[in-house]
Amino acid sequence: MEKNLKKVHWKPGTMVYPLPAAMVSCGNKPENYNIITIAWTGTTNTDPPMAYVSIRKSRHSHQLISESGEFVINLTTKELAFATDWCGVKSGRDFDKFKEMKLNPVKGQKVSAPIVAEAPINIECKVTQVISQGSHDMFLAEVVHVQATEALLDPKTNKFDFNKSTPIVYSHGEYHELGKFIGKFGYSVMKKKTKKRLEKK
Amino acid sequence: MEKNLKKVHWKPGTMVYPLPAAMVSCGNKPENYNIITIAWTGTTNTDPPMAYVSIRKSRHSHQLISESGEFVINLTTKELAFATDWCGVKSGRDFDKFKEMKLNPVKGQKVSAPIVAEAPINIECKVTQVISQGSHDMFLAEVVHVQATEALLDPKTNKFDFNKSTPIVYSHGEYHELGKFIGKFGYSVMKKKTKKRLEKK
Repeated sequence: MEKNLKKVHWKPGTMVYPLPAAMVSCGNKPENYNIITIAWTGTTNTDPPMAYVSIRKSRHSHQLISESGEFVINLTTKELAFATDWCGVKSGRDFDKFKEMKLNPVKGQKVSAPIVAEAPINIECKVTQVISQGSHDMFLAEVVHVQATEALLDPKTNKFDFNKSTPIVYSHGEYHELGKFIGKFGYSVMKKKTKKRLEKK
Repeated sequence: MEKNLKKVHWKPGTMVYPLPAAMVSCGNKPENYNIITIAWTGTTNTDPPMAYVSIRKSRHSHQLISESGEFVINLTTKELAFATDWCGVKSGRDFDKFKEMKLNPVKGQKVSAPIVAEAPINIECKVTQVISQGSHDMFLAEVVHVQATEALLDPKTNKFDFNKSTPIVYSHGEYHELGKFIGKFGYSVMKKKTKKRLEKK
């Protein structure tokens, strides 16, 4: 197959996608609880588990996280898409975002920041390092606890299937649902027998 | 609506998803060109544009990137899914991955590392800082150039629509296609008129 691989050239830009559209909750008392929506987030280390969020210095949550050193990464779903977008556009200086979006803040288990109870997964983080890079500060953090919505556990197997919670993806300015399943990690080298067995499950 | 928001508690883990499944190409001469598949990647800063990749110290690409200080983040598609998975499982110490997967390495414009020509977007990066965190080293890098496949430009508008290139997403051990469109960034506060106008486009 001879494909046209000709390239066009662009100036440097933020082009790594698709990314999560995470609701990051912060603040350390009900009066200053806030949510900021962040795509500049991800995992930076496996053991110990570490994650990051990059936030503009002007944002209200930048100040809250700088002060408390704690935040929660809440994964989002189709049901939460409207609130996810809204929390990324509005400022916590002007709104109580939990109240406006009818979301439940519940104090984290290991951090003073609240979790967004409606989110399927809540990743509690403690900042270990702040790296200034220009427009954004990168908060590198250790994951100290994880909560998951019990209703999403399979009652038979007790297994949690996040991908069945209609997660949303942020890609080049658009929110999308997660699409068709392609394969599990390692499927390219899996023996046909094993593959068939797994597909039956 | 009263939902069951009861939570289960887990020990800390790497739970931030969905993520890209990027083919990261490295090496600085055809004899040592290599590809490693990485989900621990993302944007860390907007201006200047910065990205990161986290790599286990034992990986062949860790050594290559440590030596050259350069790499390319290649976004992947459904067509590239098999190669993406394979490059994440096999080692460049044992295979010429470009050759095995029949991919074209083309020297980057601003870096000595090759781009994967078949990828829709190639993000050329220069390392600015390496942060050791335990299992992985995080290579923080400035984006110095971006290439995109010309065939994906709309011939009328000259606009590039990455989301039409069947991008793949990595979520909790599974590769998925990008799914149904939900909305553009800011849709939750958009006036109905503007929304309708945009939807017609």
